[in-house]
Amino acid sequence: MQLPKFVRMVEVGPRDGLQNEKTMVPTAVKVELVDRLSDAGLTVVEAASFVSPKWVPQMGDSAEVLAGIARKPGVRYAALTPNLKGLEGALAARADEVAVFGAASESFSRKNINCSIAESLDRFAPVMERAKAEGVPVRGYVSCVLGCPYEGEISPGAVAEVAERLYAMGCYEISLGDTIGTGTPTRAQLMIAAVADRVPVERIAVHFHDTYGQALANILAALQMGVAVVDSSVAGLGGCPYAKGASGNVASEDVLYMLDGLGIETGVDLDRLIAAGAFISDAIGRPTASKVARARGCA
Amino acid sequence: MQLPKFVRMVEVGPRDGLQNEKTMVPTAVKVELVDRLSDAGLTVVEAASFVSPKWVPQMGDSAEVLAGIARKPGVRYAALTPNLKGLEGALAARADEVAVFGAASESFSRKNINCSIAESLDRFAPVMERAKAEGVPVRGYVSCVLGCPYEGEISPGAVAEVAERLYAMGCYEISLGDTIGTGTPTRAQLMIAAVADRVPVERIAVHFHDTYGQALANILAALQMGVAVVDSSVAGLGGCPYAKGASGNVASEDVLYMLDGLGIETGVDLDRLIAAGAFISDAIGRPTASKVARARGCA
Repeated sequence: MQLPKFVRMVEVGPRDGLQNEKTMVPTAVKVELVDRLSDAGLTVVEAASFVSPKWVPQMGDSAEVLAGIARKPGVRYAALTPNLKGLEGALAARADEVAVFGAASESFSRKNINCSIAESLDRFAPVMERAKAEGVPVRGYVSCVLGCPYEGEISPGAVAEVAERLYAMGCYEISLGDTIGTGTPTRAQLMIAAVADRVPVERIAVHFHDTYGQALANILAALQMGVAVVDSSVAGLGGCPYAKGASGNVASEDVLYMLDGLGIETGVDLDRLIAAGAFISDAIGRPTASKVARARGCA
Repeated sequence: MQLPKFVRMVEVGPRDGLQNEKTMVPTAVKVELVDRLSDAGLTVVEAASFVSPKWVPQMGDSAEVLAGIARKPGVRYAALTPNLKGLEGALAARADEVAVFGAASESFSRKNINCSIAESLDRFAPVMERAKAEGVPVRGYVSCVLGCPYEGEISPGAVAEVAERLYAMGCYEISLGDTIGTGTPTRAQLMIAAVADRVPVERIAVHFHDTYGQALANILAALQMGVAVVDSSVAGLGGCPYAKGASGNVASEDVLYMLDGLGIETGVDLDRLIAAGAFISDAIGRPTASKVARARGCA
């Protein structure tokens, strides 16, 4: 099997994972989670979101989280910034990088952010410009890359188009998200191939959800295409909002276990990562969604 | 990706899955489960086990199960037969095929069946002979192919040796079982390659446990090696006996979802399979371990 020697794991648990929690997670818990994740060796931790707290109250303390963490050299603390106001908040809070997001599905874009894909990208233009002026790297997320809750299957071409635009606008990396987790390995490879025609494969990250149990198989298929950046969420934080009770983000522990087994370097320590997952699962009173953590915890 | 066009799914839920259930499952429920599985299009269903009911009380009604099912043409109803007495029981109950088992780990063999690997294989010789005389095909299971609860990692050579012996003794197929689920894709491929040096790849099946969430990735890796027979258990029946509360057998629904997505034919209908899984989960009062079933059920 042709596989990358090193994979950068991008930890999205503190933001993408926690944002849908109904009960407010105390700021101190979020801070400790982020610190435990950086201590485990993760070099990119999505720790904050500067969206309106009216929409996502759980992320209302993002500035306090970024102020409270013990910044570790070499670690980038990222924040989601949907608009210029969000970007200003992220800059003031000293986020190391920010992220914008587009959908590969027209219906999803309209239902999720109330505008067309093209309009959503236009809105990011001033964000990109200002971030560039400040020297802050911007990551671009594309959602619904393998399926949409409203449209069903999404064509690889549609994904490639949004990815290319985000890349052309200046995003240093494009994270391709299987938002509803319906993708399977061959379709994942075809989609990645379409994107890699327009965006260098070194600039592509994958963001798989495990709703249908396919995430690790899809990640393996992506690695075989040369993709070497993988998003995941400690303890599998963040269920699937489109299927109540089902899994969402793939668990970082399970991804790392596979990467370790494949002999791929990550710089991340499995035991510390499992401990970070146990900490947050305990704090929010949810069983971990990581099978590795469960197997270790029960053995 | 180089993949087989057709995969035979071997359903082990009614035997390997149910055998560890503490509460006795009524014979009528087992019969209905097997019938629902054959109705879903599965062509091999492991339905019975003729071990001593002193050791596995749950399987004590195996003859009644085989007598009660609606035998469907083209479907093979299989039974586990550890010895000649078990084989006689299976033959009397008209099992279409039987199975014997060896371990790739010396310690596991001794702790599990109280004898060395070599002794265990010797004991199967009369079973093989009698089965051959009756024209009943014998399947050979090898356990601990990627790890052992007592020895840790197992060498591919040790697996190949047991597999070769079982094949030489007359087993028509060798099912390679990752009993504790610790395997990862590259190691799975190296192990399969070692076995395929001595047993034709068409005669190799894989039997992955999802204890560490790696089963589908490992199955994908096995398919890429040309393996085209995959064991699984509906609803993921059968937790891991070595890690309480953790998963055991990979769920058939999740395997089928991936195979469907890969465009691989199986002849199995996903909706009916999910319904069979819902039936048995309901009957034994356990949530399904299939993510596909959960996502479908919640959506």
